[in-house]
Amino acid sequence: MRCRSCRGPAVIEIRRHHAAFCTEHFLAMFRTQVEKAIRRFRMMGPDDRILVAVSGGKDSLALWDVLLGLGYDATGLYLGLGIGGYSDRSHDAARTFAKHRGVRLLTVDLEQEHGFDVPTAGQRGSRSTCAVCGLSKRYVFNRAALEGGFDVVATGHNLDDGAATLLGNTLRWQTQAIARQSPALPAHEGMVRKVKPLHRLSELETAAYAFLRGIDYVVEECPLVAGNTQLRQKEAMNAIEHASPGTKAQFFLGYLERGAPLFRSEDRADLRSCEGCSQPTTGRFCAFCRARAQILGERLSGGPEPSDREVAEELADEVLPVEIYDGAGR
Amino acid sequence: MRCRSCRGPAVIEIRRHHAAFCTEHFLAMFRTQVEKAIRRFRMMGPDDRILVAVSGGKDSLALWDVLLGLGYDATGLYLGLGIGGYSDRSHDAARTFAKHRGVRLLTVDLEQEHGFDVPTAGQRGSRSTCAVCGLSKRYVFNRAALEGGFDVVATGHNLDDGAATLLGNTLRWQTQAIARQSPALPAHEGMVRKVKPLHRLSELETAAYAFLRGIDYVVEECPLVAGNTQLRQKEAMNAIEHASPGTKAQFFLGYLERGAPLFRSEDRADLRSCEGCSQPTTGRFCAFCRARAQILGERLSGGPEPSDREVAEELADEVLPVEIYDGAGR
Repeated sequence: MRCRSCRGPAVIEIRRHHAAFCTEHFLAMFRTQVEKAIRRFRMMGPDDRILVAVSGGKDSLALWDVLLGLGYDATGLYLGLGIGGYSDRSHDAARTFAKHRGVRLLTVDLEQEHGFDVPTAGQRGSRSTCAVCGLSKRYVFNRAALEGGFDVVATGHNLDDGAATLLGNTLRWQTQAIARQSPALPAHEGMVRKVKPLHRLSELETAAYAFLRGIDYVVEECPLVAGNTQLRQKEAMNAIEHASPGTKAQFFLGYLERGAPLFRSEDRADLRSCEGCSQPTTGRFCAFCRARAQILGERLSGGPEPSDREVAEELADEVLPVEIYDGAGR
Repeated sequence: MRCRSCRGPAVIEIRRHHAAFCTEHFLAMFRTQVEKAIRRFRMMGPDDRILVAVSGGKDSLALWDVLLGLGYDATGLYLGLGIGGYSDRSHDAARTFAKHRGVRLLTVDLEQEHGFDVPTAGQRGSRSTCAVCGLSKRYVFNRAALEGGFDVVATGHNLDDGAATLLGNTLRWQTQAIARQSPALPAHEGMVRKVKPLHRLSELETAAYAFLRGIDYVVEECPLVAGNTQLRQKEAMNAIEHASPGTKAQFFLGYLERGAPLFRSEDRADLRSCEGCSQPTTGRFCAFCRARAQILGERLSGGPEPSDREVAEELADEVLPVEIYDGAGR
């Protein structure tokens, strides 16, 4: 196997590109794909202050690394979810990376800041663990970015994430959710811009990038993720990819090119300020405040607690205002 | 297991409906689903003359049977594809059904009428066997309906067919093909109305209907179908269905309800008469005439033979004018 660029010995084969690469040219290809994504969706400019959502896994650390390499002003934010040793090791990986690169890592602890951790949240209330976790991430990152004066929040969603989420949304024809599956969601009142610069790169490619760059990331999966909907969608997508290599990229990137324009009209929501926290929401109280109240057994002032039916509808309807993460898990 | 309607012993369980049925109430449910499809898409009226595309398999014979049972004026058309013993047995099944019910079965033989059979077509020219077969069926059924004064062509496509084709089209975001996946395509100049009254019923349900009605159908698959794209899409869809029962119906019926309106603008084509056979086409010569010329090694008068590239584009672009069958195979 020879590198496509220099014909030297290759270290990785990318089947979908029908090509192999040596370390140097794989890293160059990776950066080029990120630059292409940034340019195409006007994700960020040289003067923007970028907040990177850092979990300690391969995707978010690869993202942070490549953004720093491209010269962007990128600060990390780690959200402590309270998932025992897994959270500790994730935090360590994020801290080690920041220390080695001499960059700033902010930390928010969900329990300290909002009174609950993810395992507790999964046991109480009517939302799944992954749903509360995703909701909390979207909320905390958006709020931290606004309060810290950042221009954009960048997340490490890769091609596999995008394709799996799109497959799930398309199988149910959730047209509003499909419409919002953009690698760049523009800023609105109370909502900072959100971008996914790795959306053209597969999970295998982000793992290879992190490995070849010597990044020490947390390899283990979140212990709470078993049976997660997105995992099942990834399995389905992988089975299809196995039968027809290239389908995953064709599906997700084809959507962005030809599908997305048809769904644009479906992305509509009337936003106002949450009566609890002032973050934007489509209802009186935002989904995070409602979830939090339910978990802590508190009443939201001025209103009755939401019924199970309301919560179910809200979950099915997914929450626009804090749409950083578009999957259930992560 | 008890019948949902009468609590008598059930003979079949439909997992997606969370229900079981006795023979009588399964057959009644089946007819109700067909009536619902016909009503919802205004497929046919009591005075329409209907041409049923009959292959001799479970779907087309079940369709013919249920349409006759509902009192429609339904004539069968069998197309001889020349696939050895498989075609002979299929023809026999269709003839036996027609004879027992005392209804008329028309027959067209592809070789006699157009000079080639499907196995030969697959070996020559640049189209796959399944592509030429599908193209020939669409062409012959449309033409026979027009020439015989029929108002509508009905095909036995079931829910599994619809979901698999939709999955394939969606994975590649072939928006024009998605837009045309309607259970009822209206008549146009030179194109008779085409309907799929079984589109709400699964393959398992059509097989059960045929069995319970004592219909003697050809069980074997077409011997040329191995590796067919639609078969792979069916496998993928079945894997997803297995993990989340109900997804198949949700996907296809959800598309019709919520997806289809967004794709409507993509269904556009300027039609004119084919210079070879007068059937409608988007080019000078229709896809069937072009395929036929290539298979027989003839030149289409007045024009050069299409290049491989043109044929490939036309195939990718699939052929609107004779859109009876929307899958590759069948």
